[in-house]
Amino acid sequence: MKSIDTYKEAFLLYLNEKIAVKEPVNLYKPVKYILQLGGKRLRPVLTLLTCELFGGDVKKAFDAALAIEVFHNFTLIHDDIMDSASIRRGQPTVHIKWDENTGILSGDAMMILANKCFESYDAQVFKSLMVLFNKTALEVCEGQQLDMDFESRNDVSISEYLTMITNKTSVLVAAAMEMGAVIAGVSNEETNKIYAFGLNLGLAFQLQDDYLDTFGNTETFGKQVGGDITENKKTFLYLKALEVSNDIDTNQLISLYNSKQHNKNKVAEVTAIFNNNNIAVLTKNEIEHYSNKAFKILEGISISDENKAVLKNFGSELMKRTI
Amino acid sequence: MKSIDTYKEAFLLYLNEKIAVKEPVNLYKPVKYILQLGGKRLRPVLTLLTCELFGGDVKKAFDAALAIEVFHNFTLIHDDIMDSASIRRGQPTVHIKWDENTGILSGDAMMILANKCFESYDAQVFKSLMVLFNKTALEVCEGQQLDMDFESRNDVSISEYLTMITNKTSVLVAAAMEMGAVIAGVSNEETNKIYAFGLNLGLAFQLQDDYLDTFGNTETFGKQVGGDITENKKTFLYLKALEVSNDIDTNQLISLYNSKQHNKNKVAEVTAIFNNNNIAVLTKNEIEHYSNKAFKILEGISISDENKAVLKNFGSELMKRTI
Repeated sequence: MKSIDTYKEAFLLYLNEKIAVKEPVNLYKPVKYILQLGGKRLRPVLTLLTCELFGGDVKKAFDAALAIEVFHNFTLIHDDIMDSASIRRGQPTVHIKWDENTGILSGDAMMILANKCFESYDAQVFKSLMVLFNKTALEVCEGQQLDMDFESRNDVSISEYLTMITNKTSVLVAAAMEMGAVIAGVSNEETNKIYAFGLNLGLAFQLQDDYLDTFGNTETFGKQVGGDITENKKTFLYLKALEVSNDIDTNQLISLYNSKQHNKNKVAEVTAIFNNNNIAVLTKNEIEHYSNKAFKILEGISISDENKAVLKNFGSELMKRTI
Repeated sequence: MKSIDTYKEAFLLYLNEKIAVKEPVNLYKPVKYILQLGGKRLRPVLTLLTCELFGGDVKKAFDAALAIEVFHNFTLIHDDIMDSASIRRGQPTVHIKWDENTGILSGDAMMILANKCFESYDAQVFKSLMVLFNKTALEVCEGQQLDMDFESRNDVSISEYLTMITNKTSVLVAAAMEMGAVIAGVSNEETNKIYAFGLNLGLAFQLQDDYLDTFGNTETFGKQVGGDITENKKTFLYLKALEVSNDIDTNQLISLYNSKQHNKNKVAEVTAIFNNNNIAVLTKNEIEHYSNKAFKILEGISISDENKAVLKNFGSELMKRTI
């Protein structure tokens, strides 16, 4: 089995070969820019890895992997406009480097370019992949809508939050894996199981993101710790704190998140309430819950024990990450 | 053969049945809103009509017709944001009625909903339609980019303008017709011909739009005449005037289009230069040129003379329209 880095390098070579700037350059330059900003390339690597673990020809999985990565980056461009985010992976976001109109239109083009990546598959596989892709893409939009809806609500439940991150993040991780299995030509039963594995892995991954944003180490995390708190994001940490804390902490937390006044100690004060209520441990427990659910599903998948170990190891490493 | 109104009514019934508001409602309400604003429904009617003229089962063409209309309305939402347009068909645009983020995200969802409409076709037809759709959709984005690029340029040629409107408008009209033929199951040779017919019809249609925006009758046109002039749009009329007018008119026209000062007589002054240079007739000639090109292609298509007459009549009526 190849190492994860080998898959990532092969994918990046493919991406650089396929993504060219053509006329009109103002449409395609931002596409190349966002795709070359870097990132873990988690989703395309999972497509390639899953295809190979199921005994498929990895060469056939590159176009689906590329589609997933192009789609993911399209959502980043549009989300950054909606969130007024100016920095992505340490560089200016597309709508800052160019302008909002460029961000909207180049994003639209990427959605179509993602579709086009699937055209290399024969009609039957093409349709299977497109049906999965359309379902997933719509769920991602629904997740983004829920995320925006939650901004103005003070009664978001943990269950609603988990639905939101399932749609916004997990379904694409799950679909990336299922596509690898579809291309390897395995049965629906197996593709459903690998999808369920990916869904739980994706949930654990997003909860780990929430965790690192507050409890990560600034030096290894790569961005400022506390960003979610500064932006009043109702993450798992915040919602869990509301659930378990006493009235004093609850009221203080709501007041800190709803205050319009600038408070330079806000990150420290919110983190203190989190610490006071054992939120780091409670979040780690939740991450472990979804990781274990994924690993349990993995046991029932029809691949060799050696290949199961590769996926389990991949998942464990993902949860140990500090970035 | 059914009347055009019959196709339109049948399509609207289908659209109302298929487009439902579900959760999250903030994502789907704007989708229903824009789709129910009205309009000529030119593209979906052409899909239905073409399918039937080629002897296909019109019932099978409704999903492709719906895909085309949903996609077209997605481009309207995003274009209205990019153009800062506040009124569409006499009603507030989506980003005005809600906000820009809603416009961006609901538009994105519509692009995916359009894809999903094709899922009812079997794998072979599905792939044919999707390949055509993806190519067309990307060209529409390229057309919109060219349109934005032209705003800041003073050296746009008529040839470049025709390329822009071909991409922004004609290819979708052409694809709408080709899809009807694909669903009817005719040969590639015939689908290519009907595409070429639609492309020229679409060009004539857009040039007629340019014409009506300046020379239309305010009472029948349904919107304020002179909107293109107010917005300094480099339409065929403007570019033709630059081509044929003397230096005095040319300089005056460029000055009127580049002035930052408000000029309440601008529409009248620009229209006077157009009249001075016979632009109405020159534009009508161009419209006739592309209509005739379309009708010439129509002669070579393998459908009955009666059916050719239906398409020719449809095209002629489109060019006589005042709205």
